[in-house]
Amino acid sequence: MSGLPPRTVADSRTTVVRLMIPTDANFTGNVFGGQILAELDRVAYVVAGRHCHQNCVTASIDRVDFLAPVHVGDLVEWLAELTYVGRTSMEVWVQVNAEPLQGGSRRKVGEAFLTMVALDAGGRPAPVPALNLVSGEERRRFAEGQARAETRRKVRTAHR
Amino acid sequence: MSGLPPRTVADSRTTVVRLMIPTDANFTGNVFGGQILAELDRVAYVVAGRHCHQNCVTASIDRVDFLAPVHVGDLVEWLAELTYVGRTSMEVWVQVNAEPLQGGSRRKVGEAFLTMVALDAGGRPAPVPALNLVSGEERRRFAEGQARAETRRKVRTAHR
Amino acid sequence: MSGLPPRTVADSRTTVVRLMIPTDANFTGNVFGGQILAELDRVAYVVAGRHCHQNCVTASIDRVDFLAPVHVGDLVEWLAELTYVGRTSMEVWVQVNAEPLQGGSRRKVGEAFLTMVALDAGGRPAPVPALNLVSGEERRRFAEGQARAETRRKVRTAHR
Amino acid sequence: MSGLPPRTVADSRTTVVRLMIPTDANFTGNVFGGQILAELDRVAYVVAGRHCHQNCVTASIDRVDFLAPVHVGDLVEWLAELTYVGRTSMEVWVQVNAEPLQGGSRRKVGEAFLTMVALDAGGRPAPVPALNLVSGEERRRFAEGQARAETRRKVRTAHR
Amino acid sequence: MSGLPPRTVADSRTTVVRLMIPTDANFTGNVFGGQILAELDRVAYVVAGRHCHQNCVTASIDRVDFLAPVHVGDLVEWLAELTYVGRTSMEVWVQVNAEPLQGGSRRKVGEAFLTMVALDAGGRPAPVPALNLVSGEERRRFAEGQARAETRRKVRTAHR
Amino acid sequence: MSGLPPRTVADSRTTVVRLMIPTDANFTGNVFGGQILAELDRVAYVVAGRHCHQNCVTASIDRVDFLAPVHVGDLVEWLAELTYVGRTSMEVWVQVNAEPLQGGSRRKVGEAFLTMVALDAGGRPAPVPALNLVSGEERRRFAEGQARAETRRKVRTAHR
Repeated sequence: MSGLPPRTVADSRTTVVRLMIPTDANFTGNVFGGQILAELDRVAYVVAGRHCHQNCVTASIDRVDFLAPVHVGDLVEWLAELTYVGRTSMEVWVQVNAEPLQGGSRRKVGEAFLTMVALDAGGRPAPVPALNLVSGEERRRFAEGQARAETRRKVRTAHR
Repeated sequence: MSGLPPRTVADSRTTVVRLMIPTDANFTGNVFGGQILAELDRVAYVVAGRHCHQNCVTASIDRVDFLAPVHVGDLVEWLAELTYVGRTSMEVWVQVNAEPLQGGSRRKVGEAFLTMVALDAGGRPAPVPALNLVSGEERRRFAEGQARAETRRKVRTAHR
Repeated sequence: MSGLPPRTVADSRTTVVRLMIPTDANFTGNVFGGQILAELDRVAYVVAGRHCHQNCVTASIDRVDFLAPVHVGDLVEWLAELTYVGRTSMEVWVQVNAEPLQGGSRRKVGEAFLTMVALDAGGRPAPVPALNLVSGEERRRFAEGQARAETRRKVRTAHR
Repeated sequence: MSGLPPRTVADSRTTVVRLMIPTDANFTGNVFGGQILAELDRVAYVVAGRHCHQNCVTASIDRVDFLAPVHVGDLVEWLAELTYVGRTSMEVWVQVNAEPLQGGSRRKVGEAFLTMVALDAGGRPAPVPALNLVSGEERRRFAEGQARAETRRKVRTAHR
Repeated sequence: MSGLPPRTVADSRTTVVRLMIPTDANFTGNVFGGQILAELDRVAYVVAGRHCHQNCVTASIDRVDFLAPVHVGDLVEWLAELTYVGRTSMEVWVQVNAEPLQGGSRRKVGEAFLTMVALDAGGRPAPVPALNLVSGEERRRFAEGQARAETRRKVRTAHR
Repeated sequence: MSGLPPRTVADSRTTVVRLMIPTDANFTGNVFGGQILAELDRVAYVVAGRHCHQNCVTASIDRVDFLAPVHVGDLVEWLAELTYVGRTSMEVWVQVNAEPLQGGSRRKVGEAFLTMVALDAGGRPAPVPALNLVSGEERRRFAEGQARAETRRKVRTAHR
C-alpha cells in the first residue's frame, strides 16, 4: 500500500491541446500516427505521475485505431484520466479529438488505454494510492478496467 | 464586421499542460524563460484561431514577470482565454502555473496579455467575430482589456 | 489491383538504429514509451512506402507490451517487415531491441503489428502490390496476418 | 559585490543569426512570435552569462511589439547587449531584425528589454560584476535602464 | 591494449534509414547538407561505441562531396562500418544513399571517413579492441585506412 | 555572369553563437561533432545566400579536425565569410570557437571550408555576383581559395 491517501479521478485528469505543424506530418500534410502516439504516452505519464507522485513507466498500450486522418493545421486534443488502479499499476484512458483550427467540426480520431507502473528509487514497482471513485460512471469504468487488466495478465503469461 | 456570429469566451478557452524535460532547461535544470514564452504564444495563437477561424499573427506581448523558477520535472500549465476583442484584434490572457510532477504545491509562475491580429488571405488585418460576454466577470475583464488596447495604441503612436 | 508487380518481403525490410539521448527520456533517465512508439510508426511508414510507392497512413497499431525499460545511452533497433498485404492495406511487424552502447546484452523490449493503408492523390484507399512470398516462414506469417486482419475488421465493426 | 572586476558592454555583446525554416512557422508561412521570443530569451541568457560567469534566470521581459511579420526564408538577427547592471540583476536590450535571405531590405521587427538575475549554487540571487561604461551613449542607456528597473520594482510591489 | 577481445567489422556494422521531412530542408525542399553530416557523425559514434564499449568523440571527418541533391520525401540510408583501428582511434567509413520513398532509383549521395577516439572516464584517449579481419576486402580496406591515418597525422603536425 | 553587382566579404560575413544544451550532447556531456557540423553547414548556407540572393546547396565540405572537445554549457561561435567565388560556386570559411559560459578561456575547436553552389529556379547551377576584394588579406585568401577549388576539381575528376 502506498502511504498516500486515495485520490479522485478528477485530481489527475489532464488535457493537452496541440496545433499540428509541418514537423508533425509527412510531405503530403498527413500527421504521422507516431506523433499522436507519442503524445498519448506523454499525457498518460502526466496523469499517472499526478496520481502517485512517483516516477512511472509505460507497461503497455492497448490497440489504437486511427479513426480519421489528422492534418497540418488541426488542433488535436488529448483528454486523459485514470480508469483503474491496481497495487502498482494504473490504467489511463485517453481520447483524441481533432478539429481544423480554422473552422470545421471536431471529430474523434482515436482512443487508447495505457498501463503505467510506478517505480521506486531502485526501479522496482511501487504501490500507488487507491482511486477514490465518486460516481456510478467511474465505478463502471473501474470494473471494466479491472477486467482488461486481468485479460492483459493472461495474454502476457500465455506468451511466455 | 466578420461574417461569423459572436462567440463566447468559453468557446475558445484553451489549456495546455506540458512536462518540462531536460531539453527545456539550461544545464542546471532551470527551464528557460523562452520555453515558457514560446508556449504562451502558441496557446494564444490557438485561442485566437478558435475564435476567428482565420490565420492570426501576434502583434504584441505585454510585460511578463517570471514570479518563480520552473524546473525540469515540473508540470507547467498554460490557461488561456480571450479578454477583449476589437475589430481585427483579440487580447488573450494567459496564466502559467507550475507544480512538481512528483508532488508539491502548484504555484503561479507568470501571466501575460498577448494581442493577436486576424489576417485575410492577402495578409491584411481582417474583422473577427464579436465576443459574446455571459458574466459580470467577463464584462469587467473586457472593459479592462479595452483600456489596455487603448494604452498600447498610444504608446505605439508615441514611439513613431 | 495496383499496377505494380509483386514485391518480396526483403524488398521493403527496414532497420533503424538510434542512440537514446536525454531528450528521449524523463528526468530519471527512462526513455518514454512514446519515443519508441513514434519510431515504430515511422519505420512502418517507410516499409509500407517502399512496398507500394504511394503515400500511406497508419490505420491501427495492435497492443504493445514494453517488456523491459529502455535507458539513455541504449542503442535501440527497430526491425520492420511486411507480414501481410490486403487489397489496400499492409501489415507491418516491428521488433524492438535495446542494448547499452557501452556493452551488455541485447534484449527484446517490444514488438508490434501496425496496419498501414495506401492512399491515392485524392486521399482514398488505393490498391497496393501483392506480396511475393519466397519461404515457408513468410507464408506462415502471411496466414497469421490475414487472420489478424480479419479479427481487426470484426472488432471494428462490433464497436460501431 | 561580485569578486569579478567590472566588464564592458562590448565584453558580453552577442549576435545570433538564424534562418527561419518551416518548423518555425504556422501553416501559412508566418513565423510564430514565440520563436522570436524564445531566441530573445536565449540570447539574453548568453549575454548575462558572459557578463557574470554564473548561472542566470530570466526575471522579466518588457512589452514586445512585433512591428512586422517574419516569414519562412527570412534571416533573423538578434543583437543583444547589456544596458544596465544592478547588484544581482542585469538588463539586456535585444533588437531583432529580419531580411529575406534571397534579397530585399532589412527591417526591424521588434526589440525588448529582459531582466536577468544571477544565481549562486544554492539558487539565491548573487552579486554580478559592475558595468564599465566607456561612452556617453552607454552612460545614457545605463541611466534609462536604471529608471526602468525602478519602475519595474514599483509595479511589482503594487501588484502584491 | 584494451582488455576486450578483437571484434569483427560485422560486429559493429550499422545501418540507419531516415525519411527526409520538411524540418530537414530549406524552403525549396533541398535537404541541408548539415542534416546529412549530423547523421553521419551519429552513426559513426554508434559504430565506434559498438566496437569499443566506451565513450567516444569525433576527432575528424575527411572531405565530403555531396554528389547529388537530397529532397524532402527521400529515404536516406547511412551504411557504416569500421575500416581501420589504431591503438585508441577508429576509422569509420559511411556511405550515404538516397531514394524517393515513392519510387525511383537509389543513388549514392556521398561518403565519408570519420576518425573516432575512445575516451576513458577521465576523458583521456583509451585503448580499443583490435579489429579481427575476416576477408581480403577487409584487409585491403584496413591497409588503406592505415595509410589515411598516417596522412592525417602528418597534415595535423604540419599545421601546428 | 550574375546580374547582381559585386559584393564585399563584409556584406555576407555572418556570426552565429549558440549555447550547448543537453540535447546537443551524448550522455557524458560531450557535444556531438555532428551538431557542430550541422551548424557549420547552416551558417555557410546563410553566407552564400546573403552573397547571391538565390537558393544554394552544399557541394562539399573539406576535412574538419575537431581540435578540442566541446561540452554542454559551452558557448560555441561560428564565424563565417566568403574566401573565394567562382562562376557558380562560393567557398565559405568557417572558424569555430568555444568557451565555457561560466568563465574560462576561449579556444578554437575547428575550422572548415565549404563549397556552396547557387541554383536557379530549375535547380541548375546559376551565376553568382563577383567578390569585391578590399584588402590584401582578402586577396591572399581568394588566391588560396582558387587553388583549393582547382584541387577539388582534380580530385573529383580522378574519382570518376
